[in-house]
Amino acid sequence: MQELRRIVGDAHVLVEDADVIVYEQDGSILQAMPEIVVLPADVTQVSEVIRAARRAGFPIVPRGSGTGLAGGAVPAGGGVVVSLARLNRLLGVDYRNRTAELEPGVINLEVTKGVAKAGFFYAPDPSSQAACSIGGNLANNSGGPHTLAYGVTTNHALGVEVVLHDGSIVWLGGTVPDVPGYDLCGVFVGSEGTLGIVTRAIVRLMRAREDVRTLLAIFDSMDSATQAVVDITAAGIVPAALEMMDKTTIEAVERGAPAGYPRDAEAVLLLEVEGVREYTERALRMAHEVCTRAGARQVRAARDEQERQALWKGRKGAFGALGTLAPNYYVMDGVVPRSKLPQTMRAVAEIAEQYQVRIANVFHAGDGNLHPNILFDIRVPGALDRVIEAGAAILRACVAVGGSLTGEHGIGLEKRDYMEWLFSKDDLEAMTRVRLAFDPQRAFNPGKIFPTPVSCGEVRRAPARIPEGLWI
Amino acid sequence: MQELRRIVGDAHVLVEDADVIVYEQDGSILQAMPEIVVLPADVTQVSEVIRAARRAGFPIVPRGSGTGLAGGAVPAGGGVVVSLARLNRLLGVDYRNRTAELEPGVINLEVTKGVAKAGFFYAPDPSSQAACSIGGNLANNSGGPHTLAYGVTTNHALGVEVVLHDGSIVWLGGTVPDVPGYDLCGVFVGSEGTLGIVTRAIVRLMRAREDVRTLLAIFDSMDSATQAVVDITAAGIVPAALEMMDKTTIEAVERGAPAGYPRDAEAVLLLEVEGVREYTERALRMAHEVCTRAGARQVRAARDEQERQALWKGRKGAFGALGTLAPNYYVMDGVVPRSKLPQTMRAVAEIAEQYQVRIANVFHAGDGNLHPNILFDIRVPGALDRVIEAGAAILRACVAVGGSLTGEHGIGLEKRDYMEWLFSKDDLEAMTRVRLAFDPQRAFNPGKIFPTPVSCGEVRRAPARIPEGLWI
Repeated sequence: MQELRRIVGDAHVLVEDADVIVYEQDGSILQAMPEIVVLPADVTQVSEVIRAARRAGFPIVPRGSGTGLAGGAVPAGGGVVVSLARLNRLLGVDYRNRTAELEPGVINLEVTKGVAKAGFFYAPDPSSQAACSIGGNLANNSGGPHTLAYGVTTNHALGVEVVLHDGSIVWLGGTVPDVPGYDLCGVFVGSEGTLGIVTRAIVRLMRAREDVRTLLAIFDSMDSATQAVVDITAAGIVPAALEMMDKTTIEAVERGAPAGYPRDAEAVLLLEVEGVREYTERALRMAHEVCTRAGARQVRAARDEQERQALWKGRKGAFGALGTLAPNYYVMDGVVPRSKLPQTMRAVAEIAEQYQVRIANVFHAGDGNLHPNILFDIRVPGALDRVIEAGAAILRACVAVGGSLTGEHGIGLEKRDYMEWLFSKDDLEAMTRVRLAFDPQRAFNPGKIFPTPVSCGEVRRAPARIPEGLWI
Repeated sequence: MQELRRIVGDAHVLVEDADVIVYEQDGSILQAMPEIVVLPADVTQVSEVIRAARRAGFPIVPRGSGTGLAGGAVPAGGGVVVSLARLNRLLGVDYRNRTAELEPGVINLEVTKGVAKAGFFYAPDPSSQAACSIGGNLANNSGGPHTLAYGVTTNHALGVEVVLHDGSIVWLGGTVPDVPGYDLCGVFVGSEGTLGIVTRAIVRLMRAREDVRTLLAIFDSMDSATQAVVDITAAGIVPAALEMMDKTTIEAVERGAPAGYPRDAEAVLLLEVEGVREYTERALRMAHEVCTRAGARQVRAARDEQERQALWKGRKGAFGALGTLAPNYYVMDGVVPRSKLPQTMRAVAEIAEQYQVRIANVFHAGDGNLHPNILFDIRVPGALDRVIEAGAAILRACVAVGGSLTGEHGIGLEKRDYMEWLFSKDDLEAMTRVRLAFDPQRAFNPGKIFPTPVSCGEVRRAPARIPEGLWI
């Protein structure tokens, strides 16, 4: 403890319950108290903190902004939480080679804000982008509505500087597109803080598109809406975003911050295309036809930026608006092959009925990335258990059609026991080998990702609070 | 030996010098004799062969089509060469989810041929695509002229089935876009056969583009030509391909299979744009202007498919045509940030002068991926040594401006000693840890990638033969 204080200064070591309680949870329904929270200022301090913590035998739990949705930053086995919030500098931008170098505590949206004037943007746009950090995005390989066109974080991370369990500082990847040897930058991205701590990253910047066009299609049945998603991509249209909201979500939006969606519709589809003007116009025309043919009862295209923002308004406010329907929610993050979307949405509806829960679906339909939000009231005895069971049933249904447990939220603490549905013992062993190659004592974020039995006596389930100003 | 025969059948175990000599080299200037060559027919046989070879203490050298350019498939320490040529089935295609499942021995071009009728293609297009295998592409993370728009192999490999050192069979990644846990498929891609053997892969298919337009720009100075490359991307044009040939290459082409390039030009730039018609027309117009402004003396756009093929003809025949200038060549594969292209090309010219060698440049300019071909005559005493030194000087110049040792050919045997220019001891140790996690005894492809001192007494340098019908 004395040593940690010496490294980062008294003000940046928190030990009192009143101080560390802020760090006991993330955006999930899980909580556990850290023993110590440390806020280092730079890579040297991170390295020294890790060495000191390891000498004392503490596990290390890296933390970004704490907006994660799977308990990845919850200190399941106690230990030292290392917050990267103070490593928040945008270090440099190279417009000619389209890269930016930055620290992990930089907030996602700040990157785009910093380069927008020069006509660039940073593509991964998680819904929490106003609050989540680049470090957290790297840990979870985060996506966002525009993942469909631009890919997830790993497609935009060129290199990372990391601190390993012994305090050594290593660069993985770099500015050059083709780094020889193993793609270890790619391994770190999505490793959920289990291999080491990223202290610096080089990310790709993209040129702002000339034109963005948005269309809203309204459907009387979820089946027609999901079929439209399949048909749009089959027609060769690659939207920048293709988002879906179901009837329950529409109801929440129209109660909360009305966006003019018809309350009797079963689903609305929000489609965005980007590119040169001639292309966007034609793609929008094609998408209009496909939606109509799939059975849309109405299709509206935004005529200007103001109308475009109006169409997005409901989607952006959807998550927050769910609070008008229930005090608590549990959001799932399943993925299915796009062609399995219609049958999976039917399965989700059946599960809602079977478990007697209300589910609001608002999700990245184009990616086959579902976000069923199970609405509930924590005060009703047994409600949370039923909700967790329904969530597991949904993920099982995703895996059953060749899908996956997470699209962008990570496995964390929440879904580690489901990993065996997706991976064989040999598969998990191969991953564990890599984990142990970097972190032989499982010092970093123990109890996450892998279905390893670890002591988690301290983990509690708590109601997720609907975050102000955030949306998924 | 008896055991290998039992596993794969007598006909598929080669031991006689006359039989194994075919396997002593790849497309590089390096050679070494294998002790045994085995050609298994399926994953079970691969697994059994690995177990038998390891029991006998033999190193294992995986081999695709042998078109590699860095000695990656050369059995530097002897051992068993495992050829994947018989695992050559296209197992299935899923057009709705845009994936194909195939064995590693499938020839690259066969994938596109197999799906072209349905309007799809497989994007990575190494110049040897008529001969190289998907397994070799995965091992080297191969690129090609269209890497600029579509990325390298790792961007198109979704999952791989691999056999590890103990014969265990593991799936890494899969059909779903978001596989949780570590991205081990990404680690295998580009690992040059040092971690295990890929026996099955799931790759991404892309929709054929509506329109392809091609333009040839002729320059009186290399400086103007490289500046045009920088300006084209700065203008926001993302060509599907952006290829450069210098004066020496032009001379070779016009001697070999004339393409109508002016012999007094210093450089020609071949630019291709793909997409919807309205876009390609406008992008071509913009590229035309940029090239003219950068100092092109002439810019020709192909008006139809026949003219387009004529423009490409010189580029496609360039590599083979180099044989008209010298009996041997040594091709380098440096990468530099695009903005450093002008100064790097000047450095290459200076190196040619300093080492008194003739260099023909034909390369993926848009990616900053150089292919200086050092022309020489193996019969001249000392020529090969000078050529290898000049090659090293070129790669040093690439690294000096923030570049890399290889864009698409891999490190192999050829450049392992240069890895220390790019990586610190700690960086290399991190990679070695991962290597040993998969392959604790360095059974797979020992002596490759890493600057580990291994016994290579048997490695000989031999003149590279200019391959018939292949081009880079």
